[in-house]
Amino acid sequence: MKRTAFFISDGTGLTAEALGHALLAQFEKIEFEKITVPYVDSEDKAHDLVRRINEAAERDQERPLVFDTIVDKEIRKTIDTSEGFMIDIFGTFLNPLEQELNSSSSYTVGKSHSIDNENSYERRIEAVNFALDNDDGARTRHYHDADLILVGASRSGKTPTCLYLALQYGIKAANYPITEEDLNDQTLPTALKPHREKLFGLTIEPERLATIRNERRPNSRYSSLKQCMLEVEEIELMYKRERIPYLNTTAYSVEEISTRIMVTTGLKRHR
Amino acid sequence: MKRTAFFISDGTGLTAEALGHALLAQFEKIEFEKITVPYVDSEDKAHDLVRRINEAAERDQERPLVFDTIVDKEIRKTIDTSEGFMIDIFGTFLNPLEQELNSSSSYTVGKSHSIDNENSYERRIEAVNFALDNDDGARTRHYHDADLILVGASRSGKTPTCLYLALQYGIKAANYPITEEDLNDQTLPTALKPHREKLFGLTIEPERLATIRNERRPNSRYSSLKQCMLEVEEIELMYKRERIPYLNTTAYSVEEISTRIMVTTGLKRHR
Repeated sequence: MKRTAFFISDGTGLTAEALGHALLAQFEKIEFEKITVPYVDSEDKAHDLVRRINEAAERDQERPLVFDTIVDKEIRKTIDTSEGFMIDIFGTFLNPLEQELNSSSSYTVGKSHSIDNENSYERRIEAVNFALDNDDGARTRHYHDADLILVGASRSGKTPTCLYLALQYGIKAANYPITEEDLNDQTLPTALKPHREKLFGLTIEPERLATIRNERRPNSRYSSLKQCMLEVEEIELMYKRERIPYLNTTAYSVEEISTRIMVTTGLKRHR
Repeated sequence: MKRTAFFISDGTGLTAEALGHALLAQFEKIEFEKITVPYVDSEDKAHDLVRRINEAAERDQERPLVFDTIVDKEIRKTIDTSEGFMIDIFGTFLNPLEQELNSSSSYTVGKSHSIDNENSYERRIEAVNFALDNDDGARTRHYHDADLILVGASRSGKTPTCLYLALQYGIKAANYPITEEDLNDQTLPTALKPHREKLFGLTIEPERLATIRNERRPNSRYSSLKQCMLEVEEIELMYKRERIPYLNTTAYSVEEISTRIMVTTGLKRHR
């Protein structure tokens, strides 16, 4: 059985999509065709969307699910004429919240408000630039400005995690790859020593690391399972010896790794 | 009047946070202290959270709002004993969805399911690496592999947009900065000519661009308003002459820019 699900919004649709995906993930037995339609902000676009919803209903012979965060009352009324099963995300929760807060929401008076604010945006872009400038141990002289320095073996997931921390939380994260030479020294790499309290380690199953490295440099010493096992083992020993908090990333998405780092380190989102 | 709002989850908390922030943005008159608590996945953590909620209630002399996506029934029961005003995101919508889909959800049978799947994760990491490898026009030989090539003046927002498109949608986006030399030629830069259909332009108000450039290189020709006006004007002329779709990014967040590019180009999220 296949059902179509629409995530629609007069904004980016990211809230409708995030909530809709999370809800549908609870129905394992059903296959969903998922369609996100952002910026439904005119009557024309609303009528076009009604047509698409009705086509899906015809094709599936079942009502499509429609998760929406549309604020404009007229546009909502148009979409309500479709054959979709409407899940009105804002409407459902704003009424009880208005009562609890004893205050009218912009939604019920027909205005929408962006959740972004400019300061937070600037800070996030600054954090992205910081992550790019301080990627892969290329420069270490900005480490005093970093909120966090991720360390780990080459290809253990440091760079995407730094970028996600920057884009999502405005965290300035540098990263430093631990090399074989570093491991021979039985001590922290010199560049890291003054910043011990900012360090967070990533580790990964050697088999997984070998697979990832093989995509970059197939059949090399670098990507051999033996080399990966050796590096991972010594790096984990270093984390323990130097009391660096660390996380095994093998089973986690970049969102999960980032959130767990935020929790473990106690870092706060920048606004 | 100040109220405290908690966004809690036994996962990353990103869904509770996104929905909660969007809902609270509709109450302009009220100031909120926002606290995200992910990974509430044990009785100990639940009791600790109850204590924090009750402390906030005492401090504010008002009930804290608690947005939650917790799946585990026992943990939910513990948190229900707090003095918070509970907004049960999953519970509210899963019951009507179960009826419509005529299927039990994992939630009601007490299992949680991650919304991430490994393929999508791999693809997103691959896309991040692609964006980093093809940043700033440094390499153009991989353009045949790109889903999208962002063009625009230096500092118009290309790099963060490419990274967001990669992390959020798995889109492989390269970027190419249009330089003064390119503008003298009255034609598309040679590297871009074979990929005309993948091009998307960013533009920005010259005043804003000058502000951003001044942070990097203060009081330089590069960051002068005159230079920024000249570049922006000629780049917009190029977009029009070459029929490149483009967007003025001045008023938009990186999420909004990315979503609008997805809509305009018709690109689809990779899974």
